[in-house]
Amino acid sequence: MQAVVVESGRAMVREVAPPVPQSGEVLIKVRLAGICGTDLEILRGYGGFEGILGHEFVGTVAEGKTDLAGKRVVAEINCVCGRCDLCTSGLASHCRRRTVVGINGRPGVFAEYVAVPARNCLEIPESINDEEAVFAEPLAAAFQIIRQVKVERRMKVAVIGTGRLGLLVAQVLATTDCRLTAIGRNPKTLALLDRKRVRTSTVPELKLLNEYDLVVDCTGSPEGLPLAMKLVRPRGTIVLKTTCRGAGEIDWTPIVVNEVTVLGSRCGSFSDALSALAKKQIDVGSMITRRMPLSEGPEALALAAKPDEIKIILTVGK
Amino acid sequence: MQAVVVESGRAMVREVAPPVPQSGEVLIKVRLAGICGTDLEILRGYGGFEGILGHEFVGTVAEGKTDLAGKRVVAEINCVCGRCDLCTSGLASHCRRRTVVGINGRPGVFAEYVAVPARNCLEIPESINDEEAVFAEPLAAAFQIIRQVKVERRMKVAVIGTGRLGLLVAQVLATTDCRLTAIGRNPKTLALLDRKRVRTSTVPELKLLNEYDLVVDCTGSPEGLPLAMKLVRPRGTIVLKTTCRGAGEIDWTPIVVNEVTVLGSRCGSFSDALSALAKKQIDVGSMITRRMPLSEGPEALALAAKPDEIKIILTVGK
Repeated sequence: MQAVVVESGRAMVREVAPPVPQSGEVLIKVRLAGICGTDLEILRGYGGFEGILGHEFVGTVAEGKTDLAGKRVVAEINCVCGRCDLCTSGLASHCRRRTVVGINGRPGVFAEYVAVPARNCLEIPESINDEEAVFAEPLAAAFQIIRQVKVERRMKVAVIGTGRLGLLVAQVLATTDCRLTAIGRNPKTLALLDRKRVRTSTVPELKLLNEYDLVVDCTGSPEGLPLAMKLVRPRGTIVLKTTCRGAGEIDWTPIVVNEVTVLGSRCGSFSDALSALAKKQIDVGSMITRRMPLSEGPEALALAAKPDEIKIILTVGK
Repeated sequence: MQAVVVESGRAMVREVAPPVPQSGEVLIKVRLAGICGTDLEILRGYGGFEGILGHEFVGTVAEGKTDLAGKRVVAEINCVCGRCDLCTSGLASHCRRRTVVGINGRPGVFAEYVAVPARNCLEIPESINDEEAVFAEPLAAAFQIIRQVKVERRMKVAVIGTGRLGLLVAQVLATTDCRLTAIGRNPKTLALLDRKRVRTSTVPELKLLNEYDLVVDCTGSPEGLPLAMKLVRPRGTIVLKTTCRGAGEIDWTPIVVNEVTVLGSRCGSFSDALSALAKKQIDVGSMITRRMPLSEGPEALALAAKPDEIKIILTVGK
């Protein structure tokens, strides 16, 4: 089968053997896959992953002894052992022996087929189309924020970074009664939020007054956390979504002096995402700027790094 | 009056005019003062403070229209405006116009007299002697941790750093039912905790297994937070007490990937501290390694930076 493989920091199209589902796994024929900031970070060396890239997808279960056969599904990306101390204490998504689809120790979804544990799959209701379903993984990560922090009425909230993830996070927060400002530098994504009546700001327009109750860093950049520290009020909360390659130079004194809470936030519940997509609460369609075939995966990855693009979807099969 | 003044990174004894209490303030004759890690950091340039150093003290109210006149007191170090948005929203210790005794914009207590707002003073019960009372401020900061985090029975807790603050924090945590390990490198302070039946460990002995529910960084060093990130379990909590000069090189990816909560923690409630001292719950006496007169303040500060010393007390007046 065809696949987009990352090796030594380069992405290339390769012909590889299709995966053979292991015990408990199902084989899925990929329909669409989404390119995400983490894919670009992996290409820059984040996490040291090599192999088939990609973790955002929607597909059809092709085989496997399961009542999911023939069904349209999305799948949680953490594949866990179910037996370690973390799995047995309710922290399965942090399993000590986990592999993560297209990120850590397991082939990804920029391929015609992918094998994942059957228990990771969620069937997609008919009311959600493929181009919505492919956003399930990042949207789940966005919803995780309002599971971690009780966002109350009139809370002053800032989202910094209005890229792929920031746009989803801003929309999720806009479903609450908070007073939201989305902060970014890309006129294209800011305009998209303006149209959704989310108040927006660029960094130079900001007053750095330590006045936000909650700041969510979706910048994907080492500059995000220091800026968040200037925006958050004393005893306020920063949700940190940024994972990027390498170390940052950071003076964390303000976290101590202002007694700030910093919450690391990674994955979320796919059911939250599917439920919001079914209710058409979140508009993901307007984020898609380009659809390209799997065979043009490397070019799509190069384009995805440019500010003019938001979400690029790889069309794989039906 | 005599005072220990810091100027251009050097501490020196100076003859200065005694403070004149402003409206709402009382003049306090200092009895004892304690040297703390923050004083040493200020000497290294932290916060850019210049003037009379010191913020840990016990004294006698010398004058002022107050029923505290003649009373033995300790005083909260944050002096606040009472009118800004933070003061009026219950965050007075973060007042936007605050000054902090001996740390920020206000003369400290390494002097014969200090003026502080009357409302900052707490009378000390007779059952607490001067050498106990002088620990009220750092002990309050230690108790703040168990106000910020619900420390539950059998929780696995690590304190890293067994210096002046770490010893207090370890003792405070030992009053709970948690499973506590104090981690340090100073054989003298580790031995002191061993005698109190706190389990201790040195860093080389540690398995870095991400297994602690709660890790408290009292190292006062840029190495503390990265070590804490290796000890804390996924979705666990790090309490950050360290303030030190300058920036650290830090890769905060593990905070996001492991969905860790980082809580900045600064000051605490003096009533918690006085109540514990009155009940003799915390042994502070064994931490005092030296008593020196105010006139030897600079020498005392130099000694306090050495590993053989724990708490050095400046004796000022009676």
